[in-house]
Amino acid sequence: MPDSAVILLSGGIDSTTTLAVAVDRGFEVRALTVDYGQRHRIELEAARRTAAAMGVKEHITTALDLRAFGGSSLTADIAVPKNRGEADIGRGIPITYVPARNTILLALALSLAEARGDRQIFIGANVVDYSGYPDCRPEFIAAFAKLANLATKAGVEGCEFTVEAPLIALTKAQIIQLGTRLGVDYSLTHSCYDPTPEGLACGRCDSCLLRRRGFREAGIPDPAVYRPFED
Amino acid sequence: MPDSAVILLSGGIDSTTTLAVAVDRGFEVRALTVDYGQRHRIELEAARRTAAAMGVKEHITTALDLRAFGGSSLTADIAVPKNRGEADIGRGIPITYVPARNTILLALALSLAEARGDRQIFIGANVVDYSGYPDCRPEFIAAFAKLANLATKAGVEGCEFTVEAPLIALTKAQIIQLGTRLGVDYSLTHSCYDPTPEGLACGRCDSCLLRRRGFREAGIPDPAVYRPFED
Repeated sequence: MPDSAVILLSGGIDSTTTLAVAVDRGFEVRALTVDYGQRHRIELEAARRTAAAMGVKEHITTALDLRAFGGSSLTADIAVPKNRGEADIGRGIPITYVPARNTILLALALSLAEARGDRQIFIGANVVDYSGYPDCRPEFIAAFAKLANLATKAGVEGCEFTVEAPLIALTKAQIIQLGTRLGVDYSLTHSCYDPTPEGLACGRCDSCLLRRRGFREAGIPDPAVYRPFED
Repeated sequence: MPDSAVILLSGGIDSTTTLAVAVDRGFEVRALTVDYGQRHRIELEAARRTAAAMGVKEHITTALDLRAFGGSSLTADIAVPKNRGEADIGRGIPITYVPARNTILLALALSLAEARGDRQIFIGANVVDYSGYPDCRPEFIAAFAKLANLATKAGVEGCEFTVEAPLIALTKAQIIQLGTRLGVDYSLTHSCYDPTPEGLACGRCDSCLLRRRGFREAGIPDPAVYRPFED
């Protein structure tokens, strides 16, 4: 029987490519998507589409409303920054940072993994073409893996949890090339932090800018549908 | 202005006493209660009562349904063990363990603390008269504090988060004596894992047994209302 792994799946490029990597490595995949009150809730639909397209064996969407906490332009009524220069993205931590989000997401993935008897957790974190979020760094991932083995019954009983971030050192272009080789259909994914109500991407938030540059550098057409915008 | 701290408040003896300790140390307190689909949801009412009685400045109850994960008699249709001998409680990890619960709770507390600018988190974990849960141990608390400072914008920017578990080395009797000295009204608290629909405590689950023994050893009457039971 193949090993089974929990994947945090947001519906964006990174998590979808991570899912493809896990499938390619022979894992049966359990996807976990968290509806945390994000402004771009439309990504939840993308997660459903990609999970279905890639044949996961279970897809759980858990609701957790972080809007009561606020503190981020993704969960509170704070404008999403637009048209930041490429030099600014990744320098400093922007207002789209959601306090402790990846700690919460990994804690939920750990809970699901332990409840189901899985030992492997995959997360699409990466630190090259990224937004400067502290909870994407390798030292954070390593600290979480250590915590996971102290925190759980399974860990105490000697079944080691591992947390894999296979994209951690890749550029966005390399991620897109990798996913394309693995057959990912990126038209199913969603990246924009600030889409129109109909789901059109803004083209100008950090997430859109990183996506557009990634496809451009990869030499692959970006299948996302953008609202009209001027650079 | 007094420092402000986030307290994880379940409505039981330990978290309520921890709240009293934080108030006694001069903190303004923000209480966080998590409705995770626990069988004993009536404890949420106890959390509301104790938070109000102790004058917290903010009380947030966040919903997160862990029943979809299952794996515990507190979140799935698995019977709560009754009348376990005192020698058995704390030996091995019982079925009432909720996978990675304290990791999730602390991650949420960290998120709230960072969003509000608080640096101190209190949790009522203790490892003397307890149920053997791995995520109550001092090494887990220390690992989480380390993670918190890697995971967050505030941590990266040099504002250190601390995670305090002031009851960690106390017996249940000592906790009750401490809380009584600090003016805690334990009639407002709820401990039972398996109450009647009306909220009467069963008297026989691990949590009731630890509570009853704690009050007995403290020489203080237990104000909980139990359904009729035989020892």
